[in-house]
Amino acid sequence: MIQVYTGNGKGKTTAAIGQAIRALGHNWKVLMIQFMKGDEYGEINTLKNISNITVKQFGLKTFVKKGEPKPEDIKLAREGWQLAKEAIAGRKYDMIILDELNCALDYGLLDIKEILPVLVSAPRDLEIIITGRYAPEELIKIADLVSEVKEIKHPLTKGVVNRIGIDY
Amino acid sequence: MIQVYTGNGKGKTTAAIGQAIRALGHNWKVLMIQFMKGDEYGEINTLKNISNITVKQFGLKTFVKKGEPKPEDIKLAREGWQLAKEAIAGRKYDMIILDELNCALDYGLLDIKEILPVLVSAPRDLEIIITGRYAPEELIKIADLVSEVKEIKHPLTKGVVNRIGIDY
Repeated sequence: MIQVYTGNGKGKTTAAIGQAIRALGHNWKVLMIQFMKGDEYGEINTLKNISNITVKQFGLKTFVKKGEPKPEDIKLAREGWQLAKEAIAGRKYDMIILDELNCALDYGLLDIKEILPVLVSAPRDLEIIITGRYAPEELIKIADLVSEVKEIKHPLTKGVVNRIGIDY
Repeated sequence: MIQVYTGNGKGKTTAAIGQAIRALGHNWKVLMIQFMKGDEYGEINTLKNISNITVKQFGLKTFVKKGEPKPEDIKLAREGWQLAKEAIAGRKYDMIILDELNCALDYGLLDIKEILPVLVSAPRDLEIIITGRYAPEELIKIADLVSEVKEIKHPLTKGVVNRIGIDY
């Protein structure tokens, strides 16, 4: 099945990680591919000590500029998607998380036309979890589960900066 | 700070767990208190092998009946809240997750009037994360961050039953 976590609120990537933690408790094998992220998030430290989960990052440490991605941004996103395709076909994992795939699409690093056929023909017993703002309509249409995480309140809008342990 | 994850969509408890995983990567100490849950969720298996996080459940294996909680349901919820109060005052943890506290309030197992003063006077550098549908307005008002997880699509509404690894 395909799960999508989108919306402008906090809790999309963490929901995917929590879902992985639940599945790992039942001995599932999990692959998490992070698009547009190259930084040491706290979760990376924790997850590397847990068996049966692999995390791979495909992003620079710098932010991608919307409308003006660097060739290296596009190259890394494509590498991430190549790994995703192989993993979906390879049947080695029970759950594959494509973290911030929606953002990579929104920023023009990847094309939904390339993504959709792969998702549509993925094995039904493989759990694919896709996160990120601005999930495209075509993706919502084919997904089995979609949650929109809406920001009701966020300290960032009150001027609080990103916090270690919480935002990264 | 106080984070609240509410709404009718999938991803609230998992977001809290993912947030814990992130914080643990920065050596935070985390306590997760689960209200109204007594069952072996997959996450319990995974989290018990991770250091610096403690999970305590305060619920029966049976569902609480809305409007007609059993005395044992109320007793367990109160024990959970007692532990929460002590933990908030005790400064032993950096993050305290009160999973399904909103439901325990909604089902009448606990009273928001008892909860609010404790949350309002909690140390600001303690991260308190509260999950569950129907967060009361009084709680949203005092929270620093509120995300509403909205169901856009869910396989349960199409007749798919709860799935191991995904829903528990």
